[in-house]
Amino acid sequence: MKIDTLAIIGVGLIGGSIGLAAKRRAAADRVIGVGRQQSSLDRALALGAIDEAELDIAAAVARSQMAIFCTPVERIADQVLQAALHCAQGTILTDAGSVKSKIVGAVEGNLPPGIQFVGSHPLAGSEKRGPEHADADLFQGRLTIVTCTPKTDPAAVDTVSAFWQALGSCVKILSPEEHDHALAMTSHLPHLLASALAGILPAELHDLTATGFRDTTRIAAGDPSIWTGIFQQNSDAVLEALATLQTRLKEYERILKENDSKELDRLLAEAKKNRDGLK
Amino acid sequence: MKIDTLAIIGVGLIGGSIGLAAKRRAAADRVIGVGRQQSSLDRALALGAIDEAELDIAAAVARSQMAIFCTPVERIADQVLQAALHCAQGTILTDAGSVKSKIVGAVEGNLPPGIQFVGSHPLAGSEKRGPEHADADLFQGRLTIVTCTPKTDPAAVDTVSAFWQALGSCVKILSPEEHDHALAMTSHLPHLLASALAGILPAELHDLTATGFRDTTRIAAGDPSIWTGIFQQNSDAVLEALATLQTRLKEYERILKENDSKELDRLLAEAKKNRDGLK
Repeated sequence: MKIDTLAIIGVGLIGGSIGLAAKRRAAADRVIGVGRQQSSLDRALALGAIDEAELDIAAAVARSQMAIFCTPVERIADQVLQAALHCAQGTILTDAGSVKSKIVGAVEGNLPPGIQFVGSHPLAGSEKRGPEHADADLFQGRLTIVTCTPKTDPAAVDTVSAFWQALGSCVKILSPEEHDHALAMTSHLPHLLASALAGILPAELHDLTATGFRDTTRIAAGDPSIWTGIFQQNSDAVLEALATLQTRLKEYERILKENDSKELDRLLAEAKKNRDGLK
Repeated sequence: MKIDTLAIIGVGLIGGSIGLAAKRRAAADRVIGVGRQQSSLDRALALGAIDEAELDIAAAVARSQMAIFCTPVERIADQVLQAALHCAQGTILTDAGSVKSKIVGAVEGNLPPGIQFVGSHPLAGSEKRGPEHADADLFQGRLTIVTCTPKTDPAAVDTVSAFWQALGSCVKILSPEEHDHALAMTSHLPHLLASALAGILPAELHDLTATGFRDTTRIAAGDPSIWTGIFQQNSDAVLEALATLQTRLKEYERILKENDSKELDRLLAEAKKNRDGLK
């Protein structure tokens, strides 16, 4: 797996980490970083995450064999469709967005002939922002979901999968709907819960929090503007996961009211077993 | 602050850490560890967390100037009341339990003359168990709540506060009810939420969790038998905190259904601000 020129659109924590990993692991000869702010691109250049800074997506993708969109999810589909008009035949486009159905659905079938798009989502990240938090090993040993539908070009799926593997990631192929349904439970609901819990903490209790509260709410420090888009693009699946959680909370409520210690112990033990299984 | 002989009843993670800290910081000349299993006491002895192992609480407290109960919360009050019958005049008894009203209410006013009890709760710990996870610096820079009621002896409050400070902790004095109300929100509700979230995760999604899910549910790996007692002893305050959380989740539900991006962004931003404030 070796790309001559890779374009990374959006050089924040994820885009910057892709650039660092691609260069460190020789997955790309040259990396063009695209952003809206020269200051952010300059930081990425200084860190060695990109070789070249570009403010114009069209100019960058025209010279690239692969382009990866690491922008907020609500912008990705439009950016891909626009960029595709400027790509050379055979260019492969992918993304790193946390939701997949809306993006893949908007893009597939609407690209010029010879240009392929494959959805991706590396399950790695941080509540931090910006290329200064980029990490060449961010994807090492982590899972990246690559999406496949009846419309997706199988060879492009292979290329995109090989790219993520070259960055150190494991790859799992899912449909966009499978991805969104799973991530609603494993990522989006936890974010919503962490935000709900952090949001109701009265100021006078800040000093009385310990590591438990802090761990449980850590992801609530994520960028609201990123997460608003994610929740909106996956609201049906998030609402379904939230309903499951609310039902479980109602069970805890009943158990506490009835002082049902046997059932309380059973639920806590089941949760511990599940959590212990996540190694 | 220097105790000749300190008895620690229950030498697990917390009790073991108290022993290590007391010896390392010369807060006690001699530490007697009391437990029900010789094997656990032997591990604590080998680690240097205690100087002497004892299976009989009465025998240990009879020779101690201070005794600290680090047993599950539902056992503490009875153990304190029983132990007090064997204590020398002037002995100070305290505990490390995560709930305070039920324990303090059951003990205060029911002790022999000359024996004092002061409730404590160090806001430090881990989901891990056993003296092998004990840490001499567990309390360093952390907060310990010491409880005070109209019945509590002020000199004993000072002694117990000085003890925790000698272990490196900061001390805050609260009433047992203030403690339980605050901890319901800052500790017990997070544990309930983490357990609810871990409990509803389907087995087939285990591989699709990343650091967000793992951080948010870390404390669900805590010992169910410990937490069942905590929830039961503080069920009213936990139910109140849970109701506040459920109201917030209903707001998120409405916002997602109505696709109210402005309000979604506002709630997420408020949560981020609160979380960022917890340094």
